[in-house]
Amino acid sequence: GGRFLAGEHQHVRYNPLRDDWVLVSAHRVKRPWQGQLEKPPPEDVPRWDPKNPLCPGATRANGEVNPKYEGTFVFPNDFPALQPDAPEPDDSDHPLFRAAPARGVCKVMCFHPWSDLTLPLMSLPEIRAVIDAWAELTTELGASYPWVQIFENKGAMMGCSNPHPHCQVWASSFLPNEAHLEDRTQRQHLSQHGVPMLLEYAEQEACRKERLVVENADWLVVVPYWATWPYQTLLLPRRHVCRLQDLSESEKDSLASIMQRLLIKYDNLFEVSFPYSMGWHGAPTGPYLEEDCRHWQLHAHYYPPLLRSATIRKFMVGYEMLAQAQRDLTPEQVRAAQRGWGTQGVVCQGCPW
Amino acid sequence: GGRFLAGEHQHVRYNPLRDDWVLVSAHRVKRPWQGQLEKPPPEDVPRWDPKNPLCPGATRANGEVNPKYEGTFVFPNDFPALQPDAPEPDDSDHPLFRAAPARGVCKVMCFHPWSDLTLPLMSLPEIRAVIDAWAELTTELGASYPWVQIFENKGAMMGCSNPHPHCQVWASSFLPNEAHLEDRTQRQHLSQHGVPMLLEYAEQEACRKERLVVENADWLVVVPYWATWPYQTLLLPRRHVCRLQDLSESEKDSLASIMQRLLIKYDNLFEVSFPYSMGWHGAPTGPYLEEDCRHWQLHAHYYPPLLRSATIRKFMVGYEMLAQAQRDLTPEQVRAAQRGWGTQGVVCQGCPW
Ligand SMILES: O=P(O)(O)O[C@H]1O[C@H](CO)[C@@H](O)[C@H](O)[C@H]1O
Ligand SMILES: O=P(O)(O)O[C@H]1O[C@H](CO)[C@@H](O)[C@H](O)[C@H]1O
Repeated sequence: GGRFLAGEHQHVRYNPLRDDWVLVSAHRVKRPWQGQLEKPPPEDVPRWDPKNPLCPGATRANGEVNPKYEGTFVFPNDFPALQPDAPEPDDSDHPLFRAAPARGVCKVMCFHPWSDLTLPLMSLPEIRAVIDAWAELTTELGASYPWVQIFENKGAMMGCSNPHPHCQVWASSFLPNEAHLEDRTQRQHLSQHGVPMLLEYAEQEACRKERLVVENADWLVVVPYWATWPYQTLLLPRRHVCRLQDLSESEKDSLASIMQRLLIKYDNLFEVSFPYSMGWHGAPTGPYLEEDCRHWQLHAHYYPPLLRSATIRKFMVGYEMLAQAQRDLTPEQVRAAQRGWGTQGVVCQGCPW
Repeated sequence: GGRFLAGEHQHVRYNPLRDDWVLVSAHRVKRPWQGQLEKPPPEDVPRWDPKNPLCPGATRANGEVNPKYEGTFVFPNDFPALQPDAPEPDDSDHPLFRAAPARGVCKVMCFHPWSDLTLPLMSLPEIRAVIDAWAELTTELGASYPWVQIFENKGAMMGCSNPHPHCQVWASSFLPNEAHLEDRTQRQHLSQHGVPMLLEYAEQEACRKERLVVENADWLVVVPYWATWPYQTLLLPRRHVCRLQDLSESEKDSLASIMQRLLIKYDNLFEVSFPYSMGWHGAPTGPYLEEDCRHWQLHAHYYPPLLRSATIRKFMVGYEMLAQAQRDLTPEQVRAAQRGWGTQGVVCQGCPW
């Protein structure tokens, strides 16, 4: 009984981008935690280590020697999940046993020559260089492949096996599940409402403000209304932009700036180099370059695993895997309650220059 | 080029139950792993610990004292994600900001009074008692709630904060995402093919044998053709069964037996108490008890995180979260390659009696 308060009363929220729901049970964050504790990230990463295959001048698994690169550096993944020339599986003999061809390329991109940096500790021109390299790779690989997935796994908790600042780019001959889903929901929204879903969403959030984390003239970052991970965010342009390569020079500069501000906020939240997986979603490429993709809006998802501190993560396990994602605090609580998170003040910790 | 070999050439496989795809890149398992190592489970769990709130006679967070139970023991979760009486959220003022009511109950069920046991170390009558309790809870909570999710998180890696053998039961006033998805795909299969999807699938797998892990007269366990987790399995009845409470006495006995055999195989695989999240899916309940649910087939999903050893897990991170699940070995390789896994020989390790 009583009046509904989102921060106290469980409810479900609809995710229009994935066409599914999340269970929000804010009162649950009060329970004690006696489970697994995560290791904080190592603090003694050497700036240069000839045995680290991502370092300038180091030898990689395939015997190749990296150049003494000074900015970003892109090279083929030595253990690619996608290769350009796999033979086609035989035709299925039964509708419950269906395989299909998968072709592609996997690249690794180092953000900087130094292993002891992370994106938020890099300078704005250095972050801008990363954005330029992302746009170039999407253009280059997107010339033939329908989907180019840029993603960064940061921190051991997110399966990242190398502290050197880097991301991956996997281009595929097919639209992956998430791309397919977002294509369908965004297409339907445009046809029903006459405006791209995430353009309308950004306008709404800019106005409502209760889930805004950072903003500038071109971009905004929100904890989406339907976030599943505790500190999940969505980075959105204010203008209708289909793909990374459609950004103007000044939009790329302001993107570097908002990324830096967001990532510094993340690091300050629990005073730890914040782990996450992040990635870009934009209109599909390859053959789709010729098609009408106006329903798409470029965006980046940030999925960080931490829940309460640098060592306590959210586990998306039993109920989440078998039934539905469940979160322990509301997106509005995330925005409002965390010191140094929802505010505009930026504290830079330990930049190495 | 060349002839297609599933164990060497990447491809995608269709999951008819979730209507999505998995990327299978078997050659990837060869890459070296320098990332996070998991802690093996503790070996010195005391059989009885008065400070463990799941033990007989212990005091729980709410001050209640557990009975000196001797079999299974069901009690309300002290930090429930779902409560029976939450007020309704206000009507949405915008299609991108939609909330809906969520009501329910969360229960915890101890499998056994001893903290140093796990299901595979329990006797057949003890496992059978767990199955009976599951069927009773589904009947009882399913009288009013449309979905009763039984799930077990086993091991610290799966967010389990207490080694005492137990599962959870969350009943909800709504069909969660996964239930909704499986309802749609199974309904469509029945209407298109005239036979329940998972009944047909079990028949096919019983015949093809290449993904069979264990079987008996009433049940079989396969690594599904579309598995995403390396050692994921699907437990299926051979007969058409909608819900746990529809099982006959002898089917419950043979279920205890096949669960024990499966879980011993899991434990033997890497010689460790195998972590997983598992759960039951059956036809929805509550108001759906009056509806035609013949498209549903009862089944249990097992989702174990380990990939290569007791300390190396599969991370479902960047590409998986942003694009599509990806696996590093084929379901057929799992079945064929692991000593003591695909065979019928059962080795019991260290039963405490
Ligand atoms: O209720 P528990 O076991 O403390 O909690 C565990 O299982 C829940 C249901 O899957 C998850 O929401 C939690 O993140 C996890 O830690
Ligand atoms: O390629 P990496 O960084 O070694 O591997 C990591 O990211 C991949 C893409 O998300 C995952 O498939 C792997 O499980 C994870 O360990």
